[in-house]
Amino acid sequence: MAPLLQSTQYLLILFCFFVFLSASLVAESRTLFYKWEVKYEIRSPDCFKKLTITINGGSPGPTIYAHQGDNVIVELKNSLASENVAVHWHGIRQIGTPWSDGTEGVTQCPVLPGETFKYQFVVDRAGTYLYHAHYGMQRQDGLYGSIVVWLPEGQSEPFSYDHDRNLILTDWYHKSSHEHATGLATPDPGFQWVGEPDSLLIQGRGRFKCSLLGSSGLASATCNSSSPQCVAYPLTVVPGKTYRLRVSSLTSLSALSFQIESHTMTVVEADGHYVEPFQVNNLFIYSGETYSVLIKADQDPSRNYWATTNVVSRPRTTPPGLAIFNYYPNHRRKLPPTTPPAGPAWNDVAPRLAQSHAIKARQGFIHPPPKIADKVIVLLNTQNTVKGRRRWSLNNVSFNMPHTPYLIALKHNLLHTFSQAKPPTGYDFKNYDIFNPAPNQEATESDAIFRLEFKSTVDIILQNANMMSPNSSDTHPWHLHGHDFWVLGYGEGKFDIYRDPSKYNLENPIMKNTVALHPYGWTALRFVADNPGVWAFHCHIDAHFFMGMGVVFEEGIDQVGNLPTSIMGCGESKRFLRP
Amino acid sequence: MAPLLQSTQYLLILFCFFVFLSASLVAESRTLFYKWEVKYEIRSPDCFKKLTITINGGSPGPTIYAHQGDNVIVELKNSLASENVAVHWHGIRQIGTPWSDGTEGVTQCPVLPGETFKYQFVVDRAGTYLYHAHYGMQRQDGLYGSIVVWLPEGQSEPFSYDHDRNLILTDWYHKSSHEHATGLATPDPGFQWVGEPDSLLIQGRGRFKCSLLGSSGLASATCNSSSPQCVAYPLTVVPGKTYRLRVSSLTSLSALSFQIESHTMTVVEADGHYVEPFQVNNLFIYSGETYSVLIKADQDPSRNYWATTNVVSRPRTTPPGLAIFNYYPNHRRKLPPTTPPAGPAWNDVAPRLAQSHAIKARQGFIHPPPKIADKVIVLLNTQNTVKGRRRWSLNNVSFNMPHTPYLIALKHNLLHTFSQAKPPTGYDFKNYDIFNPAPNQEATESDAIFRLEFKSTVDIILQNANMMSPNSSDTHPWHLHGHDFWVLGYGEGKFDIYRDPSKYNLENPIMKNTVALHPYGWTALRFVADNPGVWAFHCHIDAHFFMGMGVVFEEGIDQVGNLPTSIMGCGESKRFLRP
Repeated sequence: MAPLLQSTQYLLILFCFFVFLSASLVAESRTLFYKWEVKYEIRSPDCFKKLTITINGGSPGPTIYAHQGDNVIVELKNSLASENVAVHWHGIRQIGTPWSDGTEGVTQCPVLPGETFKYQFVVDRAGTYLYHAHYGMQRQDGLYGSIVVWLPEGQSEPFSYDHDRNLILTDWYHKSSHEHATGLATPDPGFQWVGEPDSLLIQGRGRFKCSLLGSSGLASATCNSSSPQCVAYPLTVVPGKTYRLRVSSLTSLSALSFQIESHTMTVVEADGHYVEPFQVNNLFIYSGETYSVLIKADQDPSRNYWATTNVVSRPRTTPPGLAIFNYYPNHRRKLPPTTPPAGPAWNDVAPRLAQSHAIKARQGFIHPPPKIADKVIVLLNTQNTVKGRRRWSLNNVSFNMPHTPYLIALKHNLLHTFSQAKPPTGYDFKNYDIFNPAPNQEATESDAIFRLEFKSTVDIILQNANMMSPNSSDTHPWHLHGHDFWVLGYGEGKFDIYRDPSKYNLENPIMKNTVALHPYGWTALRFVADNPGVWAFHCHIDAHFFMGMGVVFEEGIDQVGNLPTSIMGCGESKRFLRP
Repeated sequence: MAPLLQSTQYLLILFCFFVFLSASLVAESRTLFYKWEVKYEIRSPDCFKKLTITINGGSPGPTIYAHQGDNVIVELKNSLASENVAVHWHGIRQIGTPWSDGTEGVTQCPVLPGETFKYQFVVDRAGTYLYHAHYGMQRQDGLYGSIVVWLPEGQSEPFSYDHDRNLILTDWYHKSSHEHATGLATPDPGFQWVGEPDSLLIQGRGRFKCSLLGSSGLASATCNSSSPQCVAYPLTVVPGKTYRLRVSSLTSLSALSFQIESHTMTVVEADGHYVEPFQVNNLFIYSGETYSVLIKADQDPSRNYWATTNVVSRPRTTPPGLAIFNYYPNHRRKLPPTTPPAGPAWNDVAPRLAQSHAIKARQGFIHPPPKIADKVIVLLNTQNTVKGRRRWSLNNVSFNMPHTPYLIALKHNLLHTFSQAKPPTGYDFKNYDIFNPAPNQEATESDAIFRLEFKSTVDIILQNANMMSPNSSDTHPWHLHGHDFWVLGYGEGKFDIYRDPSKYNLENPIMKNTVALHPYGWTALRFVADNPGVWAFHCHIDAHFFMGMGVVFEEGIDQVGNLPTSIMGCGESKRFLRP
């Protein structure tokens, strides 16, 4: 009996050890549980009444505050009358939970009206992230918000501040996303049903000039300058204190500059990674990017100051967005005595490129990239037509979303649901003139995807070009799902695959999930395809992705666990229904 | 061998007989196949630009022309960006095909964007029918059309005419159904985001007075009086000829009168049943009703005449709808020299009630009703509040649509998906004052349904009452799916269950699928619950059904064949997905 007893005692000790271990794990990683209801409400965020998609009554929706390592559960109820939804957790890599990425058509079927979908994922890295609709063009109707992930308790940032604040910048259209999408899909490319945004919003508030609408009954029923919903957002600060301001952009279209009158900002974080600090007066920010800047409230405290955001990279037809940098105890609605700063020239690319170059990983927090890539994909960004409709393309292929999500199609071997062709990995480098409209602007459409070797290192060269009209090249913020990538470099003109890689920054490149491709320039980035799943990579301008400006990567699909049935029910996954 | 040979010969003869029989059946009933694409387009049906749901580019969509007994297949592709659809075939009883009724929440899950749903049914009776969206409030954004079913070739109608024409009347809002639905769901009952319709349309064309919008840039970009889309619809006739005009209403809200200047109309058909002919100058028509009237082009042929439709039963804030009754060879746009006739007084119930009384089954085409009912259900129609929101109720219960369609829930025994309570079959007859607002206006919500004994005869008494504000009672057109019913009678005031049944018309009641409940009155109808399936019965005013004014009947669910998986995928039918 003695050896048996010994063995039992040994097991008991082992058991106690595991109980202790799991108890301590529980103590460190919490589960945060949210119940959200998505519905339409009539709001006037810029004084103009518009049907707005809200979460629990708000647009922006509730900010998720979590600690690194927390498990986040969002039970999302769709209370729209006839529209589906899907919500993407922007910057969260979804390691082990690719079905929670919320990208309709890629990782899930949409959530139907009346249904509740459970998103569950771990926020595995401190930083500033976002969430937003990833279905049709719903994001621009107001379905978006912030995710703030703090370091585990007891750990501290490599910079100091007194308070932590959060602002999302957006642009805002008075037309609905349905109207916008319909206008974009209209065969006549000259059809201007929806043009530039009507307003810029700071933390969901802006100010449209109602008088532009005239004085008809329609105008006064639609636009109300004294609505409390369009009072400028007050960012209240205590004199002498230092603020960490998390500034994000979820614009539909616009590239922005952001500044606070008479104050400099020190950039310290970008997309969840520490930046080697540098100072700016204007922060340039593109849709899908997040930054933390430090600001000291060190100016004359007897007055308030303007916080402003302006359109850059496109002619400035949308008026600036204004918030109030409010020195306590001044009243938060007290207008600054000055006129708001005008912001930088919209068409001066140089300072924007300079900011891009300035963003490097902070010393002590550098993740060195692999020295060489296994695969290089060059993506020429062009505006095109397809069957008479204006589209955007990569290497002359315009992306179409299939109706069976790729994750389901690949895991369940429904390969007939999308093209099995290999998308082109380059363009006619020698003959293509990026500085002039293409001689043949017709593109093809495809839902083919890139299938990457698992754990391979992939370089992407984004190459910008002239649009369809002469002397115009837009800024495109490219966002990668499921990954951060190293930003190896930016350049002007045509990327030279023989000479430019030698200029790559392999020493201290920043990691990001969204990066700007500047007018007529190129951007080089690298990532390791080590996150089993299917991931979209696309221009974060809502309309551009809608018009085909994206690609999809598959990697390690055989490593993906069993898919939850909750993501199914559409396209060919209807086949899985038992009659 | 001889007996075996005889037997084989016998079988051969039998086989040939069946081949002959099926060949002759094939010859008589055809299959009509339609491919429809539903999408948004920007249209100006009343000169004002609005996002309109079209079918194959049109609103109204294509008219289905069929012969009695034809098999109709509609492959409906949903090309909306983020919205689902479902299409109901109004007046088609769907005998043997209850899953093709197109009633989201009752008979099917909605059709997702990008998906194609196959509706298949037999049009088993000649007459005038309709189709329209039955999901959210999409019908009022333009998704509707006509079904014309002719007699089998060789058979003729009991009345004669030279030509057959078709007109649908609708009302039209400049706000989208999303805006409308959101306004209705807003807790503040006084919130007037969407009020009365902006225009009345005849066959998809109306005329909004653009000058009401003022002269701002917004106004001129939105409203264009010279758009060809808002030219009055021309109904061209040849002098001396007689026309069968099929007039239907699919208004969202409005009860209408319809008239053709200087011409009388002889009513000959209602909802697919022959009417004992009678003449009218004004045809009153309620949403969901169809009529055929005969009109002889017997007036001065040197000019055109107005065809007009006017709102009745509610204060007339929407201007009349105008079409041109165009005598060939006058130009079809030549305006009549007269002012359009003003139409009947909006608040005079007497002529509307008189028309209802006048509609009887045509001699020789009477379907006698069962003499007595097995069950009587009295439905008191009231306006209420539920948790601060304005709603409509039956016997103080406001209907909520569940998210698992009843047909699936009942056939697959998912009885936990909706309330198993029995809805009330009556109200406090003795104490309720139908002529005054209710003292307690709060109602309850429920998704409970009536489960009817298969093949039983059911009487429904619709009882109208005062709305929440004093001295107001609306007209409610009630529509039954899966059935025609006999209209046994109409009365003023409170229905007396002891005395009023003796006044029922059991001799020659008309059969209909939609019937008006007049202000402060009652309407009695009878049907036989002999069509296996689950069928909605509701007020056909879009907003009223949306606000709870409906009930659902189940009958013979055990007789329903295997459900197609194409109707599944939502609610608890997601459970049927194999992971």
